[in-house]
Amino acid sequence: MNFASDNTARIAAPILAALERANCGPAPAYGNDPLTAALEQRFSALFEREVAVFLVATGTAANALALAHLSPPWGAVFCHERAHIATDECGAPEFFGDGLKLVGLPGQDGKLAPAALSAALASGRGPPHAVRPALLSLTQATECGTVYTLAEIAALTDIARRARMAVHMDGARFANAVAALGCSPADITWRAGVDVLAFGATKGGALGAEAIVFFDPERARDMDMRRMRAGQLLSKHRFAAAQFDAFLADDLWLDLARHANGAARRLAAGLTAAGLAPLWPVEANEVFVRVPSGLDARLKAAGALYYAWPEALDADSPARPDSSVIRLVSSFTTTDEEVDNFIQLIRMPG
Amino acid sequence: MNFASDNTARIAAPILAALERANCGPAPAYGNDPLTAALEQRFSALFEREVAVFLVATGTAANALALAHLSPPWGAVFCHERAHIATDECGAPEFFGDGLKLVGLPGQDGKLAPAALSAALASGRGPPHAVRPALLSLTQATECGTVYTLAEIAALTDIARRARMAVHMDGARFANAVAALGCSPADITWRAGVDVLAFGATKGGALGAEAIVFFDPERARDMDMRRMRAGQLLSKHRFAAAQFDAFLADDLWLDLARHANGAARRLAAGLTAAGLAPLWPVEANEVFVRVPSGLDARLKAAGALYYAWPEALDADSPARPDSSVIRLVSSFTTTDEEVDNFIQLIRMPG
Amino acid sequence: MNFASDNTARIAAPILAALERANCGPAPAYGNDPLTAALEQRFSALFEREVAVFLVATGTAANALALAHLSPPWGAVFCHERAHIATDECGAPEFFGDGLKLVGLPGQDGKLAPAALSAALASGRGPPHAVRPALLSLTQATECGTVYTLAEIAALTDIARRARMAVHMDGARFANAVAALGCSPADITWRAGVDVLAFGATKGGALGAEAIVFFDPERARDMDMRRMRAGQLLSKHRFAAAQFDAFLADDLWLDLARHANGAARRLAAGLTAAGLAPLWPVEANEVFVRVPSGLDARLKAAGALYYAWPEALDADSPARPDSSVIRLVSSFTTTDEEVDNFIQLIRMPG
Amino acid sequence: MNFASDNTARIAAPILAALERANCGPAPAYGNDPLTAALEQRFSALFEREVAVFLVATGTAANALALAHLSPPWGAVFCHERAHIATDECGAPEFFGDGLKLVGLPGQDGKLAPAALSAALASGRGPPHAVRPALLSLTQATECGTVYTLAEIAALTDIARRARMAVHMDGARFANAVAALGCSPADITWRAGVDVLAFGATKGGALGAEAIVFFDPERARDMDMRRMRAGQLLSKHRFAAAQFDAFLADDLWLDLARHANGAARRLAAGLTAAGLAPLWPVEANEVFVRVPSGLDARLKAAGALYYAWPEALDADSPARPDSSVIRLVSSFTTTDEEVDNFIQLIRMPG
Repeated sequence: MNFASDNTARIAAPILAALERANCGPAPAYGNDPLTAALEQRFSALFEREVAVFLVATGTAANALALAHLSPPWGAVFCHERAHIATDECGAPEFFGDGLKLVGLPGQDGKLAPAALSAALASGRGPPHAVRPALLSLTQATECGTVYTLAEIAALTDIARRARMAVHMDGARFANAVAALGCSPADITWRAGVDVLAFGATKGGALGAEAIVFFDPERARDMDMRRMRAGQLLSKHRFAAAQFDAFLADDLWLDLARHANGAARRLAAGLTAAGLAPLWPVEANEVFVRVPSGLDARLKAAGALYYAWPEALDADSPARPDSSVIRLVSSFTTTDEEVDNFIQLIRMPG
Repeated sequence: MNFASDNTARIAAPILAALERANCGPAPAYGNDPLTAALEQRFSALFEREVAVFLVATGTAANALALAHLSPPWGAVFCHERAHIATDECGAPEFFGDGLKLVGLPGQDGKLAPAALSAALASGRGPPHAVRPALLSLTQATECGTVYTLAEIAALTDIARRARMAVHMDGARFANAVAALGCSPADITWRAGVDVLAFGATKGGALGAEAIVFFDPERARDMDMRRMRAGQLLSKHRFAAAQFDAFLADDLWLDLARHANGAARRLAAGLTAAGLAPLWPVEANEVFVRVPSGLDARLKAAGALYYAWPEALDADSPARPDSSVIRLVSSFTTTDEEVDNFIQLIRMPG
Repeated sequence: MNFASDNTARIAAPILAALERANCGPAPAYGNDPLTAALEQRFSALFEREVAVFLVATGTAANALALAHLSPPWGAVFCHERAHIATDECGAPEFFGDGLKLVGLPGQDGKLAPAALSAALASGRGPPHAVRPALLSLTQATECGTVYTLAEIAALTDIARRARMAVHMDGARFANAVAALGCSPADITWRAGVDVLAFGATKGGALGAEAIVFFDPERARDMDMRRMRAGQLLSKHRFAAAQFDAFLADDLWLDLARHANGAARRLAAGLTAAGLAPLWPVEANEVFVRVPSGLDARLKAAGALYYAWPEALDADSPARPDSSVIRLVSSFTTTDEEVDNFIQLIRMPG
Repeated sequence: MNFASDNTARIAAPILAALERANCGPAPAYGNDPLTAALEQRFSALFEREVAVFLVATGTAANALALAHLSPPWGAVFCHERAHIATDECGAPEFFGDGLKLVGLPGQDGKLAPAALSAALASGRGPPHAVRPALLSLTQATECGTVYTLAEIAALTDIARRARMAVHMDGARFANAVAALGCSPADITWRAGVDVLAFGATKGGALGAEAIVFFDPERARDMDMRRMRAGQLLSKHRFAAAQFDAFLADDLWLDLARHANGAARRLAAGLTAAGLAPLWPVEANEVFVRVPSGLDARLKAAGALYYAWPEALDADSPARPDSSVIRLVSSFTTTDEEVDNFIQLIRMPG
């Protein structure tokens, strides 16, 4: 019963197999190999337009490099106040961006509220005293396990566009979002106004591979230099390319995500039936639920693994002394049995 | 009727005279001159302990260098959400601090609320995902024209100390605060838990001189290197020292601040009598008041100079379509006549 | 006949096998897994003392993070003028180090000359005008395929110690150096005055795994924060640990390096016999040789892969119009047949 | 007999008078005042084209901000190995430039040699491994007291232009150079291929005022943001503008520089007559001469002030145990009497 995170999962079998296949004779280093070239074409096909792709080792690097590339150091990046880039990356966006400023904004269900964005843009002193609005960053799926609809994204990117800001999407769980929406990757990104996507494969089943996808290759100019000096140009690059290629081939990424999403829905249904309705709609592979302290202790004692969710500043769900909010994450490896065992534990008399 | 800012004022006569006196034969550059040595002694006497002092050209540099020196790049600096360092310095703290993170917190009357600080410290993921709480930054006098009492400062620095954070004070209007409180500079700084003070003379009457004061000289180690590479070591340093020396001599700084504070009180009284009570207590040299749009237009037409106050995100005083909040700043040059003319304008039938 | 670089090689079989073994059930992310714990113990055993180890994705990151951790932003890092950190990392040391300064110094055979280091330390204005000498960086094996002896390292680190500088070793090819010297890893590092080692496994046979090894764990304090914000904390960390563990187990790293070194010696012998003596002693897995333009063209036409060596600023070997210096790198995959075919090509009448 | 530096001098009388004149009623802060507007026009007139001007507090800031604005963080800035930006600014260019790289090149008489620049451009690995050549920085007058001729500048900027690099001029002693050449400021800057000039007034006679002059205003875009976040936007900006305005008015800057240059020539003549010929041509206001240790001690004992010149790495003049190279700097305040007294001291029997 491991619901700690989707990055506790192993490598998906087809991805490991791809690594093994790639492990033949010599290949040019630093991305000059045929596998990388093929992957770039696959990305362009997937997104139905020519894109510029840069693989890196971690999601934090993918986000931070993308933000740094589209914001000047004196830029403001607007994001949800619970966004991973704001709370979990130890200041990487500020570091890579030479001191750019993240501005966290509120919004229900982990979704940035258009009114909050508009209000933030309307306030503030002008240049050169205030930093300049440069980027809107959306997390898809969100940190609360919800998924922005196409209309919700378009409403936000429209505000950004009018303020001459670019749009970044943190897609650490992009696969879960696309699987949930059932839309095309193109529709939910550039057609909806997104300029750059940090597309994660690691949480979805890779060993470690993240892609920065620029939908306008012109905006990617010099990104090779930025990636290199950030220590993110992998020398045996073919193995990163092989992972991502296998992830995208034959819709593996969507199959794995559908599995994880399904496990989360099964969890949510079981919890609701047990009288513990999730805090936010369960649309991807994360479930948040408030559990009484006694139950929390009992679950842990039985070996269930998950994290408490920081809640002190959470307007949707203020902290209470006798209970806590927990986060349950499913992955492509989560089995029905694991879920059912967990629900059974919950339903057991305390 | 110029209430735009205290930095629109000229140089106070005794400070200009000091510049003229300092303009004699050659003197060693870069702070190795006798005037600078004397100033350092004066600072130590003023604060009743040995301090380490670094003069710089602007308040933004003073704040940003102080923060950078006491926070690692992965540190969080907690400040009021309206703090100058957060809203008006174009990301200087993040730049000088190699990407440190400012965390804006709410609080009435421009004063950071202890509960908000405690809540912020209690939330957040642990290291290495979340940045580490490193600094508390207090603005004295605040951006709202109020002044922290000794007890209020001690309550906040106590929380900081228990969380192993250092404490910075933005004293661009430190003189106004000390004049208002009538306390000793030592009491309101290091005796109340402050580690470093950005002590401004420019708004108070200098041409341009700001001091970074470390109350524990040991914590200032290498600050000379940091200042130099930031382009803030003035070559003809004696002229900055001369300004500050004259500012501090014979309590000039307090006399000038008392004058400015008095003008603000006169403004506040006149406004209140005219039915326009200030939004926040007028304790230093700034007055904030909501004025109907018609009056706003009339005042401007009559030549009154002041700025509108960004209010869109202001919980204390939400934006309204038919009025706006204006900021009136007095200085050592503000005359009773200016104030009275302004009040008279306000009382005129519209 | 691929002598382009050792990073064009595949993954060594035992390392791939270790990845496959590690690919079982869930494991804690971010290095909190048992494999990582075991690896840390293995490193301490290997170096005969408690060390602090941080795995990262690339050698550039390993070097840059290590340098940034031991130098203030106003520090000078002295290195050979041909050092990888100075010429091939696109400014990563300066980026990670918030603007620290690399100072390239001359020295024969790719080895920094003690006299050049002493001279550099003796020159320069004092603080705060000049940056402060903070680090000595040695590359072992060097960029010229030579290996510092213990005595050579000790002579340099002794100068560094007297100048209160720390010592970094770029060990992208540390395995080749240790294999060549036949000494213990402890002797050639901390016992010889090295404070931090960037220990590479990628060129030696891994998919991608580099270790930053601090010989005094106290100096590694907060390195977890620095690594995280640099986007170098791998979420599925167990797979990096598994690679390095297999690399170190049963002296695999030395066996692979010995193979590569042997291939280089075979190359050198063949070249010398053909009248093309290498430019510098062949002590590790790189061979540098000047070839006439005609031969160069013929080799390439026959499918031999290698890079030209930038030589314009090279005092040891000034550029000539009718020839060029080429670099031949062997790896654990280089076969005798490959080498012999290459030598045969060279000996063929032009 | 103070020849320590031209920044030990006082404020020139017409500049102090301008400060006094500017010290009247209120004026808009942050450069929105009439004096600043007038100064901008004066600069455009002086340079015979529309320029964009940004005043800052120090020469280090002027240089570092200019370099940072015209080089990406992954850029290389080529300069003379003795350039102030490389040796005396404590890493400010790297700090402001987010880690850009300075590449010091040799050249006689403090002048960068075209062949050295060409060689440096021809070497190096390509992108993304090597940093990209971005800027050429020339110091005029040089650190050795010499002055580039128009032809020398054009030869270097021509190489830069062909390599798509921009050109920066460190003009801390620009006045001395223009006075020496007797040319127009336009001829020696943009007409000769210079893109940005750091034009110093402080050494020439101001209290503290330095100008960054962009000859193509388009390239200055966002410089206001960069200056602000660097803590270099002076709030009482009118006083910086007043200084520079007086400096430029009625050719004061050239008159003061001619005086300083004349004093240096008088020094050089006296030294030469005494058998101590200067090391490099004396073309501006600095004289470098090797003096026996005994004389050095005697001069100091007699109260002469000057600095030793770091020479350990100096190919033109290698260090010798029984003598040292000293630097003598004259300023607008240097009197014939001071010079003659100094020469007399030298000629006295030891």
